Amino acid sequence: MSLSTTARTTLSRLRERARTDRADLHAVLDAGLVCHVGLIRDGAPVVLPTGYGRIDDTVYVHGSTGAGWLRIADGAPVCLTVTHVDGIVYARSVFHHSMNYRSAVVHGPARLVTDPAEELAGLRAIVEQLSPGSWEHAREPDRRELAATAVFAIDLAEASVKVRTGPPSDDEPDIAAGGRWAGVLPVRTVFGGPEPDPTLPPGSSVPAHVADRLPG
Amino acid sequence: MSLSTTARTTLSRLRERARTDRADLHAVLDAGLVCHVGLIRDGAPVVLPTGYGRIDDTVYVHGSTGAGWLRIADGAPVCLTVTHVDGIVYARSVFHHSMNYRSAVVHGPARLVTDPAEELAGLRAIVEQLSPGSWEHAREPDRRELAATAVFAIDLAEASVKVRTGPPSDDEPDIAAGGRWAGVLPVRTVFGGPEPDPTLPPGSSVPAHVADRLPG
Repeated sequence: MSLSTTARTTLSRLRERARTDRADLHAVLDAGLVCHVGLIRDGAPVVLPTGYGRIDDTVYVHGSTGAGWLRIADGAPVCLTVTHVDGIVYARSVFHHSMNYRSAVVHGPARLVTDPAEELAGLRAIVEQLSPGSWEHAREPDRRELAATAVFAIDLAEASVKVRTGPPSDDEPDIAAGGRWAGVLPVRTVFGGPEPDPTLPPGSSVPAHVADRLPG
Repeated sequence: MSLSTTARTTLSRLRERARTDRADLHAVLDAGLVCHVGLIRDGAPVVLPTGYGRIDDTVYVHGSTGAGWLRIADGAPVCLTVTHVDGIVYARSVFHHSMNYRSAVVHGPARLVTDPAEELAGLRAIVEQLSPGSWEHAREPDRRELAATAVFAIDLAEASVKVRTGPPSDDEPDIAAGGRWAGVLPVRTVFGGPEPDPTLPPGSSVPAHVADRLPG
């Protein structure tokens, strides 16, 4: 299935970097820990980092009811962006310096989720995106916690994916001139060793859903 | 020097996470590779990832003149956000799951830089943020490349910094109940081994400004 091609999801330059497959969109979203949500407040844009989760073609984010952080009006236009930096691209010229990256940009109204089953499913998706296995391991939210949480759904109907990979795109004269290094310095996000909560009983073992995230 | 406390930079909850020192703001900005810039287009927010650089209390971003990517009108309100994810916070309850992070949110009009000296300085700051040492090593932009580049300046006058560190904040009954793991899984951004451009002469050595970024 292809992604939409509305005016704002059609890249105006570097079209070769645009991906049009829905699987690419899902892959970029599923690989992230944090998204950046753009809102309009008092006529100005505001961009806030937050966790998120995906179920099929819907992304979920949550805020605190009545709080300023991620305060979204039901139906307000938002933009949700997830970016992975994969490498620093060193070129012979300053002009061709670049980044290798994957980014997904989702546009749409933020729908306030009012159905209790969808709210719980959305929260589960958000928690499982950040910490797979936690929903089963941890205590589920109680009525008071759910009442304090607002969940918003954004449809993936209007979204674009942009990807840059590979070596720099230097101009021929710069390559021919020689004497300057060019290449890619890969950038990776890795997990460090788990730091147990100080209030845990001594000798508590790290559960598999946490330990499994560490490199073998 | 303290940061401003306008309505939109005063955090409405979790105030203990707010930092008010300008040095904290500079530190969060200086540690990043990518920012997310929020703009308003046709009444809706748009959030795009891009490189950036800082000189004193000004952040610079660049776009391509006439291009859709990061097309900003001179004086348009923007929001520039830099986020570092430092850890996944596992709690006994789903509700207290969280992230350790540092984020800086800058609000202000984007000023189109027209002074050639400032444009060059802004570009240098952007390149040096992404790839320290590259401005000296690589070929500087020529007149044609400069003409194709639009540089925007955003003042740091109105900005906020939010930081979460440390273990989860579980409720006492959940701690007392036992049986569930809690702690932090650190998240780090690391560089991998340099991948030389295929067009480099065989045996080209990696220059110090690139090699020095790798862990000893």
